[in-house]
Amino acid sequence: MLHIIKIGGNVIDKESDLKHFLSELAQIPEPKILVHGGGKLATDLSQRLGIESQMIDGRRVTDAETLKIVSMVYAGWINKHVVAQLQALGASAIGLSGADADSIRATKRPPKNGIDYGWVGDVSPENVNTTHINGLLEAGLLPVFCPITHDGQGQLLNTNADTIAASLAKALSQTQAVKLIYCFEKQGVLSDAKNEDSVISFIDTATYADLKTRGVVSGGMIPKLDNAFDALAAGVHTVVIGQAQDIKILATANNTKGTSIRK
Amino acid sequence: MLHIIKIGGNVIDKESDLKHFLSELAQIPEPKILVHGGGKLATDLSQRLGIESQMIDGRRVTDAETLKIVSMVYAGWINKHVVAQLQALGASAIGLSGADADSIRATKRPPKNGIDYGWVGDVSPENVNTTHINGLLEAGLLPVFCPITHDGQGQLLNTNADTIAASLAKALSQTQAVKLIYCFEKQGVLSDAKNEDSVISFIDTATYADLKTRGVVSGGMIPKLDNAFDALAAGVHTVVIGQAQDIKILATANNTKGTSIRK
Repeated sequence: MLHIIKIGGNVIDKESDLKHFLSELAQIPEPKILVHGGGKLATDLSQRLGIESQMIDGRRVTDAETLKIVSMVYAGWINKHVVAQLQALGASAIGLSGADADSIRATKRPPKNGIDYGWVGDVSPENVNTTHINGLLEAGLLPVFCPITHDGQGQLLNTNADTIAASLAKALSQTQAVKLIYCFEKQGVLSDAKNEDSVISFIDTATYADLKTRGVVSGGMIPKLDNAFDALAAGVHTVVIGQAQDIKILATANNTKGTSIRK
Repeated sequence: MLHIIKIGGNVIDKESDLKHFLSELAQIPEPKILVHGGGKLATDLSQRLGIESQMIDGRRVTDAETLKIVSMVYAGWINKHVVAQLQALGASAIGLSGADADSIRATKRPPKNGIDYGWVGDVSPENVNTTHINGLLEAGLLPVFCPITHDGQGQLLNTNADTIAASLAKALSQTQAVKLIYCFEKQGVLSDAKNEDSVISFIDTATYADLKTRGVVSGGMIPKLDNAFDALAAGVHTVVIGQAQDIKILATANNTKGTSIRK
């Protein structure tokens, strides 16, 4: 089963966490794809360069200068740093942006209600060019995607890593079984937000409806789970939500950690 | 015939030159690999960040901060910018550092005579992993290498683009005919340094000895030509030295521009 694993900035930012995660990842025997987010480095670099980040509703506007910075930080430093570490761990990683091998195209997000997010791209599974990605997997390589894509017209675009992971999973599940693993801060979907140990180990369509009705899941967890069910509807075998440090367990067939989501 | 083409900072730094070069490159029908140098952007970024570049004999010392900057600029911005442009031109490029697919390993240059260049790597043809590079070429992709490699132990290394191009050419010529094209500022090797039109169109071992004896070639041209003959001795079919703007002509079998060097 192909494993598509997404890690966020929280793992990238802490070198010891990243090291531990990568050493566990390298030990997963199945074919896999890693998608990484950005982390604080881009914000730090912008600040050091005196470039003000314009934020709208908590989202960064990607002007030309910011695009250059995120391309440098995500595709340059983070991506190559991760690839070199994986090589040292015996996993032959290959770092990619969506422009590489034309693997993921995106559409520049059009301004809406007067809000222009700039050079931000939206992807969908139809924008994933599976031929070359499957070729890399067949060659035994571990593709590592950074959250930068392109529009096919020469323009790079800043793109959400969660959506990249979901689009890859949906597109690649047309020809193989895919397990999509989202690593985030918590151990999984909690039945009690205040209790880190209250992980719900399994959710399907029926239990999800029940959990929503009873108000057990709410807030930011709803769009996350909606996206998971959306991926399942598009053919993804299983979605798992858990912590990066548990990746080896999350990747096993009967994972004893994290929340598994199936139709 | 596989074409391995190296461009330097002078092409990277001028957007209009780069655009023209890439549009010509995309039209070359043969399989090809592009190797690009760094350009002024890394120096500019260092200055804006207030990081002083320590130079020894005109060469930059790569400390940890500088390594981060060159990785960001070369592997992040320049590499992805070039790849996205090539995609728009219909050439399916894939950007690579030496760490990607473990394609080029390097050895950290040991301090010599008390001079330590820091995180600088030296490559040789034995460090080129031809399996995956040939796989990418067979898949119809155009590998675009930036001058960043790794040591196989997780460490990225700043590496000379000329040496990367030569090492790739030597290693890949073991299984196929390779033409190595070095783009530089002049139209070719000149018989009269003051006359840009005095390009020597062909040099072989005998004529090279003669040119040296008569003092026609001297100075910085000697190591360049020595490297060319070194590549030929290792199995490279032809080395061509010329200008980036002439790339389409330089890549033809009977190039009417540039200097062709054969054994």
